[in-house]
Amino acid sequence: MADREFSFGVLARDPGSRARLGRMRTAHGEVTTPAFLPVGTRGTVKAMAPWELEEIGYDMLLANTYHLYLRPGPGLIGKAGGLHEFMGWRRPILTDSGGFQVFSLSPTLEVGEEGVRFRSVYDGSEHLLTPEKAVAVQEELGSDVAMILDHCVAYPASREEVEGSVELTLRWACRSLDAHRAGGQALFGIVQGGAYPDLRARSAEETARMGFAGFGIGGLSVGEPREDMLACLEVQAAILPGDRPRHLLGIGDPEGITEAVALGMDLFDCVLPTRMARNGVALTRQGKVNLRHARYRHDLRPLEEDCGCPACRSFTRAYLRHLHGLNEILAHRLITWHNLAFMHGLMLDCRAAIEAARMVQLIREWRGWSERVPGE
Amino acid sequence: MADREFSFGVLARDPGSRARLGRMRTAHGEVTTPAFLPVGTRGTVKAMAPWELEEIGYDMLLANTYHLYLRPGPGLIGKAGGLHEFMGWRRPILTDSGGFQVFSLSPTLEVGEEGVRFRSVYDGSEHLLTPEKAVAVQEELGSDVAMILDHCVAYPASREEVEGSVELTLRWACRSLDAHRAGGQALFGIVQGGAYPDLRARSAEETARMGFAGFGIGGLSVGEPREDMLACLEVQAAILPGDRPRHLLGIGDPEGITEAVALGMDLFDCVLPTRMARNGVALTRQGKVNLRHARYRHDLRPLEEDCGCPACRSFTRAYLRHLHGLNEILAHRLITWHNLAFMHGLMLDCRAAIEAARMVQLIREWRGWSERVPGE
Repeated sequence: MADREFSFGVLARDPGSRARLGRMRTAHGEVTTPAFLPVGTRGTVKAMAPWELEEIGYDMLLANTYHLYLRPGPGLIGKAGGLHEFMGWRRPILTDSGGFQVFSLSPTLEVGEEGVRFRSVYDGSEHLLTPEKAVAVQEELGSDVAMILDHCVAYPASREEVEGSVELTLRWACRSLDAHRAGGQALFGIVQGGAYPDLRARSAEETARMGFAGFGIGGLSVGEPREDMLACLEVQAAILPGDRPRHLLGIGDPEGITEAVALGMDLFDCVLPTRMARNGVALTRQGKVNLRHARYRHDLRPLEEDCGCPACRSFTRAYLRHLHGLNEILAHRLITWHNLAFMHGLMLDCRAAIEAARMVQLIREWRGWSERVPGE
Repeated sequence: MADREFSFGVLARDPGSRARLGRMRTAHGEVTTPAFLPVGTRGTVKAMAPWELEEIGYDMLLANTYHLYLRPGPGLIGKAGGLHEFMGWRRPILTDSGGFQVFSLSPTLEVGEEGVRFRSVYDGSEHLLTPEKAVAVQEELGSDVAMILDHCVAYPASREEVEGSVELTLRWACRSLDAHRAGGQALFGIVQGGAYPDLRARSAEETARMGFAGFGIGGLSVGEPREDMLACLEVQAAILPGDRPRHLLGIGDPEGITEAVALGMDLFDCVLPTRMARNGVALTRQGKVNLRHARYRHDLRPLEEDCGCPACRSFTRAYLRHLHGLNEILAHRLITWHNLAFMHGLMLDCRAAIEAARMVQLIREWRGWSERVPGE
């Protein structure tokens, strides 16, 4: 039941883990995995131009259906020739269904069998999002990979609540598949299950049975202990069919990514690398450089010694700190570029580690990274 | 008394006006004139990266001594190897003296023979700017062209007030020349004189006598009628030595620029093209496109049909309006790029008109531009 123009193949495996190097083919080109997808929330990856994302080496972006549905609306984007044309990005695009944003950003008015009624975060207007509508909107956007509407619960949630959410998401998944017209667009199911491994298993088994082109794993890293997250991920990774891509939704920390790659995850997305950049925090292999700290005021070194991005090639920490302190756009641009180059570099390292059968070592190298601060 | 490494030559003249095509040689390269200088207020041309300004074709930037003196301070910039190195711009830089900002932005505490005491717009701290200090700070910044500290008056001002201001500026000009060590940096005098043609004449005559490498014309387009501005400009242009470049400070509207070029002006700077861009206003030959207008919501045309800038090449008015309405950085970037490409294109047109002896026609083509709104 693979969609036309969409396929996924595993090219290499790491013998010490479940990590795999893969290639996803879509209507707008190929995506090598494991891959990190920069998030183009409102039809732009904040502070970046599309050609700069290409220059870094990104194959694919994620765009948020919730935001584009409300602003500027799928009608205009459809009229403009689809999202690729509208935002000037000719490579593959994955759209989420809007479910996560409805449940996290919007005042939710009512969740029922039919769908979810919510108020727009922009103007308070009332909207009904159904599985069919999520499919239709994404079809109008023309993304290469669409995702089903899923029901999300906050953490912690009772077993009953999560059970209900899993079952509702399964029924919505069926309706999504019925509504989906293959065309050039692949549809991914989304598995849920909170922090309950058995519900995670049920969600994965039932969703796998439906024959989606790929799968999103949702509702993780929402507050649960790290070991619980990894346990849930492991359960589902073992169940989901190995010949389909798996997208771990919303996770972007290097430790989490390397561990998830080792469990067989192929795709990642997260707003943190770009959001942290706009807060003056640069990601480096030595740890986080928070440019708001006075210690960087006279620091004439680049953000990261061996990085080839424009921020590191031409500018000092002192200059970037100067710009950031004055909220200059160029600060946001350069630090975002650096952080996205950092994330892409991490994915290249994962791919190289899989080919060199050293994924376990790579995980070890990144362990404890989030507590590191680069030395003076 | 030309500075080492600095020279200016006239390559062609328009027979129907005083317009000239020139070439200015500086320590960091050549500048073809007439030229518009984008303003890099705080060590960055807002929203642009240095390589993008090169791509448009800009030879030279203007940077504000006032802002850089207060943030991050000339000490750090000197330590970093100078402003070129600090901001990653390897082509020529002109710095103003800070005078205009002191008188327009800062609460001025006291103007005396020695200099001007003011409060920082950033933190309210007290500073004394003298002609010698303005020279020393710009020397530390390492710009290719420095400007003397001048005294500015608001418009309208009494004849006595303007007279005093002209005389003070002349005495400061002498002290600036004494303080200036040629090196690789040229020093420009600044002529003033309010809206009084005879004071304009005196300021130009006395300043010309001092032998500066070039001249800034200040205090125009500050509220006086257009014909008064042009009359003052004409008086001074006729007096200032023809073999030195003349910079008309702070003027950036196409009509004003073409008329000033015809009077023999060589250099221009203005924040309006970049500031308007961040307000959603794009400059086109057909007039101003204000993207905040609802009429552009579904407009799938580029900002300007025959423009080759990235904003026009890859994006529609509808997309730019969408981004601007959400205050997305990419909107500021793309519209700024377009407006700076527009300004550079205007200067190329001036150069071509001088070579083709049709400067008068060019002025006619631009007359009334500011009232134009592109048709539907």
